[in-house]
Amino acid sequence: MTTKTPILGLNRFEFNDTQSIDTQLASHIRRRHRTQGENSVLFYKQPIEMVSARGTWMTDSYGNRYLDMYNNVPSVGHSHPRVVEAMTQQALLLNTNTRYLFSVLENYSEALLETFPDDLSNIIFTCTGSESNDIALRMARMVTGKQGIIVTENAYHGNTSAVMEVSPSGHKRQQLPPYVKTIAAPDPRTLPMGISLAEKFAEDVRQAALSLESAGYGSAALLVDTIFSSDGVFADPVGFLAGAVEVIHQFGGVFIADEVQPGFGRTGSHYWCFQRHGIVPDIVTLGKPMGNGYPMSAVITRPDILATFNDETEYFNTFGGNPVAAAVGMSVLNVIKDEGLLENASRNGLYLREGLSCIARDCTSISAIRGAGLFNGVEFTCPEAGGPDTPLVQTTINRLRDEGVLIGAAGTFGNILKIRSPLCFSQEDADFFLDKLGRVLKGLRPT
Amino acid sequence: MTTKTPILGLNRFEFNDTQSIDTQLASHIRRRHRTQGENSVLFYKQPIEMVSARGTWMTDSYGNRYLDMYNNVPSVGHSHPRVVEAMTQQALLLNTNTRYLFSVLENYSEALLETFPDDLSNIIFTCTGSESNDIALRMARMVTGKQGIIVTENAYHGNTSAVMEVSPSGHKRQQLPPYVKTIAAPDPRTLPMGISLAEKFAEDVRQAALSLESAGYGSAALLVDTIFSSDGVFADPVGFLAGAVEVIHQFGGVFIADEVQPGFGRTGSHYWCFQRHGIVPDIVTLGKPMGNGYPMSAVITRPDILATFNDETEYFNTFGGNPVAAAVGMSVLNVIKDEGLLENASRNGLYLREGLSCIARDCTSISAIRGAGLFNGVEFTCPEAGGPDTPLVQTTINRLRDEGVLIGAAGTFGNILKIRSPLCFSQEDADFFLDKLGRVLKGLRPT
Repeated sequence: MTTKTPILGLNRFEFNDTQSIDTQLASHIRRRHRTQGENSVLFYKQPIEMVSARGTWMTDSYGNRYLDMYNNVPSVGHSHPRVVEAMTQQALLLNTNTRYLFSVLENYSEALLETFPDDLSNIIFTCTGSESNDIALRMARMVTGKQGIIVTENAYHGNTSAVMEVSPSGHKRQQLPPYVKTIAAPDPRTLPMGISLAEKFAEDVRQAALSLESAGYGSAALLVDTIFSSDGVFADPVGFLAGAVEVIHQFGGVFIADEVQPGFGRTGSHYWCFQRHGIVPDIVTLGKPMGNGYPMSAVITRPDILATFNDETEYFNTFGGNPVAAAVGMSVLNVIKDEGLLENASRNGLYLREGLSCIARDCTSISAIRGAGLFNGVEFTCPEAGGPDTPLVQTTINRLRDEGVLIGAAGTFGNILKIRSPLCFSQEDADFFLDKLGRVLKGLRPT
Repeated sequence: MTTKTPILGLNRFEFNDTQSIDTQLASHIRRRHRTQGENSVLFYKQPIEMVSARGTWMTDSYGNRYLDMYNNVPSVGHSHPRVVEAMTQQALLLNTNTRYLFSVLENYSEALLETFPDDLSNIIFTCTGSESNDIALRMARMVTGKQGIIVTENAYHGNTSAVMEVSPSGHKRQQLPPYVKTIAAPDPRTLPMGISLAEKFAEDVRQAALSLESAGYGSAALLVDTIFSSDGVFADPVGFLAGAVEVIHQFGGVFIADEVQPGFGRTGSHYWCFQRHGIVPDIVTLGKPMGNGYPMSAVITRPDILATFNDETEYFNTFGGNPVAAAVGMSVLNVIKDEGLLENASRNGLYLREGLSCIARDCTSISAIRGAGLFNGVEFTCPEAGGPDTPLVQTTINRLRDEGVLIGAAGTFGNILKIRSPLCFSQEDADFFLDKLGRVLKGLRPT
């Protein structure tokens, strides 16, 4: 059995590497370590000091430019002028809390909720995806009266105390509480003969729910990132989630769709990734790209669930739903629409996957290309042994950095290149990336 | 025994009041309720639709102006142009996460840490005070190996699952876990003969710690808001916290200073309220005024505590410490310095308390005036019965609203006017407020 390598520990600068890097950067790293501790994580063997970014491109302190295939937060493009303008104008006018009324918030709430199925008509504004998932867990336990939560093996849902309990990939010493059960990621290649992925995934949920029931916890929720980002990106076949949702409902639990990473049109065909599966979650959590970098997030749910939550607790979030967040959020929705970013994600995502398939023909290490829209994964496996080729991915990431491409890894073994550029990613960007990736992999091919 | 009225339930619009308010406002309230639920709290019997704010003043949709004696978030003044400018310039340039280096963050970290005692040299950036307190609780438990937390009876420290457990004032149905013990607020009027407040408060902590020890939990931390905001504002005598900190250390626990409300110079004499007590906490949490409304917060601690935390968990906060937050935070520090806001808080806070004392001479309902700098409380008690006069405070708050003053309440019974304007509060503002408060109280005086 392969030892688990936590994905968050991948692609990081190691402290004792300082000797090998130039004086200016080393001095900057020392300042970071002095204030944020030596465990403060920096990307790459050679960390990067960034100074500016626009659209899909970032520039470092030496003037080097990088195509951003990593950051899903500045989703409509780095430093988007319309978003900055909306933020500035509102900040000059009014920024306060939701104990007062301000129409910018009502306008935004209604516009955002319009992208959801009718039943999901209520919203709580928060500041981070972690805060949203923390609320979702409490809601699930309140409405079901149960404790157990089912998540995937390498799930990551955030960083509060409660959310860390359901985020196995964030633990340095793997230890989940007994009321958290993990199931395998929905990998279509692990199916027994004659069983569909939908059936397999639903059966895994059933077994976990049975085990939680016999342990006396019951199943409060099935909580999944709807594209299974940290598990390694699993998008297909469309609809495979439906059976699992039915099962959790049969056990009296709710289904929480974590859309923090795949939401806001990233998967191209729909605004929300759960829609690809033809399901309606009980609770949806949003975050990262919601404000294109402005700290904002939300929980979307049905009125009956919100009412139960409000009956138990007085929830108030100082910054959540403030007028600046609302103005920023509205500008993001407008940019997504006006610039046709869903269509762009579909079109250029497909173009990208086609290009990746071409590269795969010459690279026996690539064992799978998966994804939807502009959230994609490329899995690397040792051609002979068949196991995850984590070192190849690590080397590729660092070589691509030197070639001007920022990219990350996913999966329990970190052997999946995680590809998720801003949604304004163009065909030219795709060509640049594919060219660099092809060259880097050619250079690394065993001779 | 008086029944506990949760403070957060005070001063709120009640849903069935819609009939009594004008059509435009009623329609706005209905929109809010439709999206955020009918339990979404709005201030005042007549909620206010705000449209703009500058300095210490806010303006509603009818053009009415209000002196803001409530909001401690826009601490250097609503819509401060220097803060907005810093935010805009940085947002146009670069906004990304801390896995990259950017000097604006190192500059800000160093400037902020300079305001702390030398031992407190490490920082984790977060987005909300709740996230900071959630981390502080985890750190405390990790470094001590204990579970118990000691807080004051009406404490509020935030809204995550873990932090709600130590926030008795946020519970609608009071039920604390067995590992959370509450102690009385440090009220100098409740002392047995011959005992100082420092001795009484330390003894209360000792009793709570003993009880946690005998229950098998031990004491991980004493966690207090250093000005005891939600308990009703207790600032004096200077130094009274020192004995309690000694006691928690004797029991092997840490002292967490929650500076989310009293920090960043609000108390005038010092940057941090704990400094008034001549103590050095093990962990300090920051929030609300840190970005003058931009969602940002932090945990400050010693390197040994951060190292233990990092050893257990991989903490990453997507928005925390981003370049825009850093630029905003730096501009707030600069404005506090350049505009002499600590001195202003000291001077005009004193002026305010003197004016309140004059009003108290003619108002037998005022039983105490407490506070430091621009964080003050005025307690109202029934002159005959001696109990908390919550209705008088509620009426006063709503009358002041009609007179153009925004103000809130604190304390277990909500009978304390909580006075905390932005730090740019002027003597003219004080005169305006004192005049209005005096008139309102005269009008309400029993005849």
